Amino acid sequence: MSRKLVILTEGHTNPHTAKTASCIIRYRRDEVVALLDGTQAGKTTQELLAVGGDVPVVATLDEAAGANTLLLGIAPPGGKIPGPWRAIILDAISRGMNVLAGLHDFLTDDAEFVAAAEKHGVTLTDVRKNEERTIARRVGIRDDCLRVLTVGHDCSVGKMLTSVELTNALKARGHKAKFIATGQTGIMVEGDGCPIDRVISDFVSGSVEKMILQHQQNDILIVEGQGSLVHPSYSAVTLGLLHGSLPQAMIMCYEVGRHCITGVEHVKIPPLAKIIELNEMMASLTQPSRVIGIAMNSRRVSADEAELERERVRAELGLPVCDVIRHGPDELVDAILKFKECDEWKMVSK
Amino acid sequence: MSRKLVILTEGHTNPHTAKTASCIIRYRRDEVVALLDGTQAGKTTQELLAVGGDVPVVATLDEAAGANTLLLGIAPPGGKIPGPWRAIILDAISRGMNVLAGLHDFLTDDAEFVAAAEKHGVTLTDVRKNEERTIARRVGIRDDCLRVLTVGHDCSVGKMLTSVELTNALKARGHKAKFIATGQTGIMVEGDGCPIDRVISDFVSGSVEKMILQHQQNDILIVEGQGSLVHPSYSAVTLGLLHGSLPQAMIMCYEVGRHCITGVEHVKIPPLAKIIELNEMMASLTQPSRVIGIAMNSRRVSADEAELERERVRAELGLPVCDVIRHGPDELVDAILKFKECDEWKMVSK
Repeated sequence: MSRKLVILTEGHTNPHTAKTASCIIRYRRDEVVALLDGTQAGKTTQELLAVGGDVPVVATLDEAAGANTLLLGIAPPGGKIPGPWRAIILDAISRGMNVLAGLHDFLTDDAEFVAAAEKHGVTLTDVRKNEERTIARRVGIRDDCLRVLTVGHDCSVGKMLTSVELTNALKARGHKAKFIATGQTGIMVEGDGCPIDRVISDFVSGSVEKMILQHQQNDILIVEGQGSLVHPSYSAVTLGLLHGSLPQAMIMCYEVGRHCITGVEHVKIPPLAKIIELNEMMASLTQPSRVIGIAMNSRRVSADEAELERERVRAELGLPVCDVIRHGPDELVDAILKFKECDEWKMVSK
Repeated sequence: MSRKLVILTEGHTNPHTAKTASCIIRYRRDEVVALLDGTQAGKTTQELLAVGGDVPVVATLDEAAGANTLLLGIAPPGGKIPGPWRAIILDAISRGMNVLAGLHDFLTDDAEFVAAAEKHGVTLTDVRKNEERTIARRVGIRDDCLRVLTVGHDCSVGKMLTSVELTNALKARGHKAKFIATGQTGIMVEGDGCPIDRVISDFVSGSVEKMILQHQQNDILIVEGQGSLVHPSYSAVTLGLLHGSLPQAMIMCYEVGRHCITGVEHVKIPPLAKIIELNEMMASLTQPSRVIGIAMNSRRVSADEAELERERVRAELGLPVCDVIRHGPDELVDAILKFKECDEWKMVSK
């Protein structure tokens, strides 16, 4: 039975909070029947999330004919299930729908949801649930597999989206590339991966290294970054991922016009050049590693403003720059392939 | 009923692996009846662990008269219970002893241990068990509380011991100081704290910040460091702790003669000056923070060699240096108090 999704974003349908919904619609369009948000019913996802074309926004599950799975479409800080959503989730279960979630609050730890699911014979899936207990050992890592990590100046700037676009473009050019998903949305898109922000901190690097070892028969791994080295709340996740994935190259992702750190708005984001320096220092402890391109997220500015910014950053940093959605990913794909052809990254001394 | 401990280190009684045992004996000597290790029976803990005086090493629980609690005295990578220990733990439970552990493998998740404990009416305690779900917010942090974090060039170099010695010495000089325990052994010594290497990675900084907020009525907090920013396996824990505790000053801990990273021995430890630079860069993103002294662990070298090394490092780094056990902590305590008197650290811009 193929998955037919109704995506729940009730009261939270904006591009920032509903990024899980946006990405699933972008990359799993065929599976999406409707978005459920009674406060926005009658619109399309294109209008609200700038993606999905005519995917309808509906007010009730009755209007999502054919859907067999309710997907919780948000990723709020702390990952809690919004209180008003409980009734909707229970309603979906009672209609025989499976429920798929990526929150820190697990459906499968909730006695009421579990009892309802048993009664109606449906499956509850918590993408973030894991029992990772692997310690990073730095053994068996292949020197001939290029690992590219997306890093960022903040959380929620487009690292996952950039990673998927780069992987798809590399595949389209005939390269053996694989997207390594490290967050709940990436996992829902790719079908495998590890939710590293939910892994016990001692095992973050190890759980990433495990994925690298599993997939290094590919020529290029594009590893989904998380958070930011300068994020006061989530830098642990970021550094564990950096040291576990051992990238030879990094793509720096940032959002044009963002100056304060998400969730800690009284803290200013340092300049991009400084964040690049920090990432290169922390990534280069045991092998050379450098930022080879910039993925700008220009969704909040006009095409003209984006072009000016692109030129400014290119000139300032001397690196390729593009918005993978607005401009397409080719400039960064070229940068990755050019880097792959040079021998710089093969001089590994783990 | 006061706690009377028999400490289990069967087959693992060396200063490195049995660091939980060593620290409990050092700081909770009154509570310790004996160490249990049949492979070393008849010796004293002083001979094996260089601490504890005449605390006996025994081969069976029969020889630990009066003990009411079995404490698991090791902290191996990954935190698993050694297979041969199961029978000893079950024996202790059947004798009516409580069991106290700090491993990643929880006693309270083990059906056989739980059933035995219920049958015999004893308590199983897993110090590392936690449900931390706090996100760091950087709100409400007092500018008049000096936070000193112990950092290191590797794991297991003496950060916990240094932190306790500094806190005790500050208290002895009449200062209102508090040791913030962040690991299982520190928690067993102090009686409170948070096992941050067992916290879900998204919440590491938040769980540390929570302790800072709880205890900032003190003048000085000495925060127990974990791992190292350059440790490929555990740097996530280290950076989360650094950003969660927001130290204005750091004490760099290192072991004389250690050149390779514990558990990843094919990776060399960078020079101390480089590690200091990395810690200062990562700690200074939102406020000034610097390393103000060096805690050397000289257990593997002679007194003369230690003195030469001390002079060498003092000259190289221009910082106070001492081994808090061999030389006493006064030089570092002076450095902390001198730093506290200057106004440098009060210029906070979180």
